[in-house]
Amino acid sequence: MAAWSELLAGVRGVLLDISGVLYDGGEGGGAAITGSVEAVARLKRSRLKVRFCTNESQKSRADLVGLLQRLGFDVSESEVTAPAPAACLILKQRGLRPHLLVHDGVRSEFDQIDTSNPNCVVIADAGEDFSYRNMNKAFQVLMELENPVLFSLGKGRYYKETSGLMLDVGPYMKALEYACGIEAEVVGKPSPEFFKSALQEMGVEAHEAIMIGDDIVGDVGGAQRYGMRALQVRTGKFRPSDEHHPEVKADGYVDNLAEAVDLLLQHANK
Amino acid sequence: MAAWSELLAGVRGVLLDISGVLYDGGEGGGAAITGSVEAVARLKRSRLKVRFCTNESQKSRADLVGLLQRLGFDVSESEVTAPAPAACLILKQRGLRPHLLVHDGVRSEFDQIDTSNPNCVVIADAGEDFSYRNMNKAFQVLMELENPVLFSLGKGRYYKETSGLMLDVGPYMKALEYACGIEAEVVGKPSPEFFKSALQEMGVEAHEAIMIGDDIVGDVGGAQRYGMRALQVRTGKFRPSDEHHPEVKADGYVDNLAEAVDLLLQHANK
Repeated sequence: MAAWSELLAGVRGVLLDISGVLYDGGEGGGAAITGSVEAVARLKRSRLKVRFCTNESQKSRADLVGLLQRLGFDVSESEVTAPAPAACLILKQRGLRPHLLVHDGVRSEFDQIDTSNPNCVVIADAGEDFSYRNMNKAFQVLMELENPVLFSLGKGRYYKETSGLMLDVGPYMKALEYACGIEAEVVGKPSPEFFKSALQEMGVEAHEAIMIGDDIVGDVGGAQRYGMRALQVRTGKFRPSDEHHPEVKADGYVDNLAEAVDLLLQHANK
Repeated sequence: MAAWSELLAGVRGVLLDISGVLYDGGEGGGAAITGSVEAVARLKRSRLKVRFCTNESQKSRADLVGLLQRLGFDVSESEVTAPAPAACLILKQRGLRPHLLVHDGVRSEFDQIDTSNPNCVVIADAGEDFSYRNMNKAFQVLMELENPVLFSLGKGRYYKETSGLMLDVGPYMKALEYACGIEAEVVGKPSPEFFKSALQEMGVEAHEAIMIGDDIVGDVGGAQRYGMRALQVRTGKFRPSDEHHPEVKADGYVDNLAEAVDLLLQHANK
């Protein structure tokens, strides 16, 4: 592996994944990952620009930020790029009325969206709401459309809660794709449009930015394909086999966000 | 399309799909498809050999046959090839202990199978039991195995009940495949081993046999790949677009089983 000084040279902006990097979800909201609260604070005191880029689609942005603040993080809503608001923008632009298969916690993000007489389906990480009945309803809506359109807020395989690995929205997206013989449009990482909007908000070019995440495909692979550098943390859903992934190789692997920030503050923007 | 006399020449054995061909499931067990009870009876009185070849995995073979008999069909358990008994044979041969994600109605088929300390997962059409919790449990069992093995009893996309289209096991198989990064072993149509065992039970070679089903991929495509002829009925899950399927073309399309049997009795085994 090249020296960190070389790998991190010229970095001006940092995109941080949230779940598995800042905290692990779970009972009572979850728990901050050791060192991450201080790491975020140090990063925000530095000359580096910082933005949070999450595929969280079970909570509204307001609820997510409230939870993070309770865990001690310095973060505000305007600093977070999340898929539900991005999806609302697309729905409005294209005049689409969604049938929503989403968790109740994120439903408020869609308050301004017309959901009558649906002509597309939006699925998000619905958790326990991924019941057979709800999946079948989304399937039936799609099968009745002449041109079925399915949006998936992210396509992660699974995430880690304090109690263990949990199925994310991706497997359910694959289920509906197969059932209907269609391909979903992904809103969230690793979609290039999503990284683009996060970088625009931060005012940093892709080649000056680095993504830090626990998902080797969604975070690391997606960011690299968009021209960014990317580090994988060995927290959250990280598994040792990720370091030998057949398709994606991170620019670097670090034990946790605290180590990533140590390295960034030492070597970036020099 | 070639003349029916040519298409059906030399047919000695008929494999009949059950759901969507004999009956449509639904409230109170479902309803026989018009003309199918008589069609089966006429076929069994002819010189043609007949066997039922189903991917039904929500009911035990005994319960399925009981239901069909109540609907008026002349059918016995020994005439039915079904995926659960086939799966049990494989599990025993390979010394595998399954975690079962199946409907309660089919659980009795696995009574003689050791399910302690599971080293594989078997999924079937679990219907309402495809809850998030049950899917997540199957996912976690697979992720804890060094060599995760997933058996899927069929891989149908959906089937038709009297109330509408319903998600079959295939979408849930795809979900677990994607979540775990593995490929399932399919037990049932369109697996060649499954057609092979049905034909062996009937004592007929593939080139002398014809499959009649409502599933353009599982029934028609699967049978053709095994060297059989295949007709698609315009009942059950049939959709007009099936007649222009990009990959599979049936040897013939008929309105229902009654029409298929008319043609077979006129032209087959001449």
